Amino acid sequence: MPRYALLVEYHGTPFAGWQRQSDQPSVQGAIEAALAKLEPRAHTIAAAGRTDAGVHALGQVAHCDMDKDWDPFRLSEALNYHLKPAPVAILACAQVSDDWHARFSAVERRYLFRVISRRAPLTSEAGQLWRVNHPLDAAAMQASADSLLGTHDFTTFRSSICQAKSPVKTLDELRIEVVPRPHGTEYRFHVRARSFLHNQVRSFVGTLERVGAGAWTPDKVADALAAKDRAACGPVSPPHGLYLAEVGYPQNPFDEAARGLG
Amino acid sequence: MPRYALLVEYHGTPFAGWQRQSDQPSVQGAIEAALAKLEPRAHTIAAAGRTDAGVHALGQVAHCDMDKDWDPFRLSEALNYHLKPAPVAILACAQVSDDWHARFSAVERRYLFRVISRRAPLTSEAGQLWRVNHPLDAAAMQASADSLLGTHDFTTFRSSICQAKSPVKTLDELRIEVVPRPHGTEYRFHVRARSFLHNQVRSFVGTLERVGAGAWTPDKVADALAAKDRAACGPVSPPHGLYLAEVGYPQNPFDEAARGLG
Repeated sequence: MPRYALLVEYHGTPFAGWQRQSDQPSVQGAIEAALAKLEPRAHTIAAAGRTDAGVHALGQVAHCDMDKDWDPFRLSEALNYHLKPAPVAILACAQVSDDWHARFSAVERRYLFRVISRRAPLTSEAGQLWRVNHPLDAAAMQASADSLLGTHDFTTFRSSICQAKSPVKTLDELRIEVVPRPHGTEYRFHVRARSFLHNQVRSFVGTLERVGAGAWTPDKVADALAAKDRAACGPVSPPHGLYLAEVGYPQNPFDEAARGLG
Repeated sequence: MPRYALLVEYHGTPFAGWQRQSDQPSVQGAIEAALAKLEPRAHTIAAAGRTDAGVHALGQVAHCDMDKDWDPFRLSEALNYHLKPAPVAILACAQVSDDWHARFSAVERRYLFRVISRRAPLTSEAGQLWRVNHPLDAAAMQASADSLLGTHDFTTFRSSICQAKSPVKTLDELRIEVVPRPHGTEYRFHVRARSFLHNQVRSFVGTLERVGAGAWTPDKVADALAAKDRAACGPVSPPHGLYLAEVGYPQNPFDEAARGLG
């Protein structure tokens, strides 16, 4: 059974999340239904990160096993055809070895969280950024973010329903990019680690927003981390500013040159 | 009756266009309904450009006449409150003199048209750009665009239902900005004139896309202009990549400093 890696972009708003559910639309369910149009049977695909309801992806990675030998480009085109009109797109497809796994072979995840500070509601971009209607102090947020870098027990920034065995993770990057806009200011949180706890990025951003708004002193974030107590976390941000941006593997399956084809 | 200028952003997809209609949602109707929540009576507002169905705005300008003296900031906040959940936002509000008119005082309009070349459908950005699934030659499009600059009889690029008295207009700018993206390439058409004919920008972009795709030689655009014949126009682009970006006035009503308040 040939195995294919899929690079997937989606808009999370209409979905109950990545994971297949019997009674609600999911991204996994949408892709599996499209696969069943190509090879009529039950399909089960695996993904690098199981995003929550309302969370988007710019570069989710999944894999599927097929009966037929598909040309990867044709497979991506056929899936995009059958995915319409769901806001899910296959950006790239590559054949991988049988032991390659979208989740277990991954060595890095990158998330993007987009926050905008402006008074007026969003129009075309509604659901794509978290809007706050007060200014944010980027330097204060970055100072607090720096105190989260490295290897820590992140119990404070972990959902109570998180299933990870250990709360210890290594945060490699939490960089806040300031993007001036004609109306308001956008703050892009770039977050990178080998793996994350459940709700970790949204817990970071919701807490750092409190620092940016001046409601928390920057020191309070380091204290919250040291407390190892979920109750010490700030509010968890809403999901709709969050994007699974990129998944890293020892060798990029979508880089044709790296696969000796280019 | 104090008069207020409104700077308006909207997502055009759910609307039959700017102009009020008895049986379909319109941007004008949405704003007039919000005004009626503040001062219960019939309201009629005027706009700088009456955008078509599906066309968006980043900086439409309208004006309204009120009975009460409103603080401009409070008026914008109250309108945004009553506009929810329609994707229409008042970005700024300023009091103007009684003889100031959003349409007749305007001396310049800027439009943005966003085209993206990529194979996969759009997800979060669906409805925000016109997607084509072939590469475009930006240099060829720009060469053709340059032949449209200046004062011409634009009959070729004018809708058959256009109500303007004369087909002669002066095109001041038609600049194509190339924005590389992680997946695909975006082409931003920046178009500027004192005023436009109906469907002029969409006729330009649809025709120039044919040049970019290699289906038309760049020379053919100058020939089409010289023909002064609607039948010589290329296909009219779809509306959803088009944004009314900015309206220019002899004095910017939203620039507080210019109004002597800053």
